[in-house]
Amino acid sequence: MAHKSRNEWEVPENFSMVVNNIFRSSFPRPENFEFLKKLKLKSILVLIPEPYPEENMQFLKENDIQFFQVGMSGNKEPFVNVPPETITKALEIAINPANHPLLIHCNRGKHRTGCLSGCIRRLQNWSLTMIFDEYRRFAFPKARPLDQQFIELYDSREVYEAALKKKWLPLNW
Amino acid sequence: MAHKSRNEWEVPENFSMVVNNIFRSSFPRPENFEFLKKLKLKSILVLIPEPYPEENMQFLKENDIQFFQVGMSGNKEPFVNVPPETITKALEIAINPANHPLLIHCNRGKHRTGCLSGCIRRLQNWSLTMIFDEYRRFAFPKARPLDQQFIELYDSREVYEAALKKKWLPLNW
Repeated sequence: MAHKSRNEWEVPENFSMVVNNIFRSSFPRPENFEFLKKLKLKSILVLIPEPYPEENMQFLKENDIQFFQVGMSGNKEPFVNVPPETITKALEIAINPANHPLLIHCNRGKHRTGCLSGCIRRLQNWSLTMIFDEYRRFAFPKARPLDQQFIELYDSREVYEAALKKKWLPLNW
Repeated sequence: MAHKSRNEWEVPENFSMVVNNIFRSSFPRPENFEFLKKLKLKSILVLIPEPYPEENMQFLKENDIQFFQVGMSGNKEPFVNVPPETITKALEIAINPANHPLLIHCNRGKHRTGCLSGCIRRLQNWSLTMIFDEYRRFAFPKARPLDQQFIELYDSREVYEAALKKKWLPLNW
C-alpha cells in the first residue's frame, strides 16, 4: 500500500549514484528540486551547451550550489564528436573532491552523461565490458556505438596521473 | 587508449550503488573479490535460498564480512511469490546502519535484488514511476510485472515507522 499520507519525491529520470558524492541524472525540472535538496549538493556539472534555465539558476543560487558548464553536443553519426579535451575538462571538475557532492546531467542522462560516467569508470579501471554494460543500462533504448567507442579510445592517462598525484584517486565508494 | 599496464577490476554484473553504503550486484564470483575488497564491506545480504559457495564463504571470513541470508525464490507466474515478511526481514537488515557498508545480491541482480531495492526506494518515498524505471533498468530484458506489483503492494508502513524511530531513515545519500 502506498504511503498516501506522505509526499512522494519526484526523482529525476535516470537518477543514480556513480560513486559516493557523484550523482547522475537527466535534466532536473522544478518538480525535482525538493528531492535534489536532500542530496546537499555543492555543485552541478551541466553538459549541454545551451543557456541554463532561469528557474534552475535560481535553485542553485538559493541553495548555494556551484554551477559548472562544459557544453558538448553528443556523439552523433557521422560528423559530431565530443572532443576529448572537453571530456577531460569535465572529468577534472567531476572528480575534484572540492566540488562534491556533485550532480552531473545533460538532457536525458543517457549519452553525454553516459560518456562522462564511462570515463570516470575508466579512471576506476573498470573493464570495458562492465563500463559498456552500465552505459547501455542508462542509454537504453538509444545506446550509441560511437559513445562506447569514445569511452574506449579516450586517453585517460594524463588525467589519471594528475588525479593520482592530487590524491583525487581512487574515488571513494 | 586502455591502461594496459594497470589491472582492470572485474566488477560484478549489474553492480551499482543504491544509496551511500548500500550496494547491489549479481552473484559475486572469485574474479570479483579483489574489486569487492575496495568497498570495505561490513556485510553481505544474500537473497538466494541455496547454500552459499565455499569460496565465497572463505572470502567473507578472510575479510571479516558478516553474512546474512534471507532466501527467497523470486516472483514467478503463476505460483511462486515472495512473502512480504521475507522482504521485511531483508529490509531490516539492509537499512540498518550497523551493517553498512552492505552488498545485496541474488543470482542475476535483477529480480530479487530489484524487489528489495524497490522496497528501499519505497522507504525513500520515491514515486512508483521512478522505482519501476530503475527496476526495469536492471532487470532488462527480463522485467517482471509481478515484481513491480509486489513493490507497489508491499505495505511498508510498519518498517517505515520502526526505522524512523530508530533513526535509520532517511537513508543518507
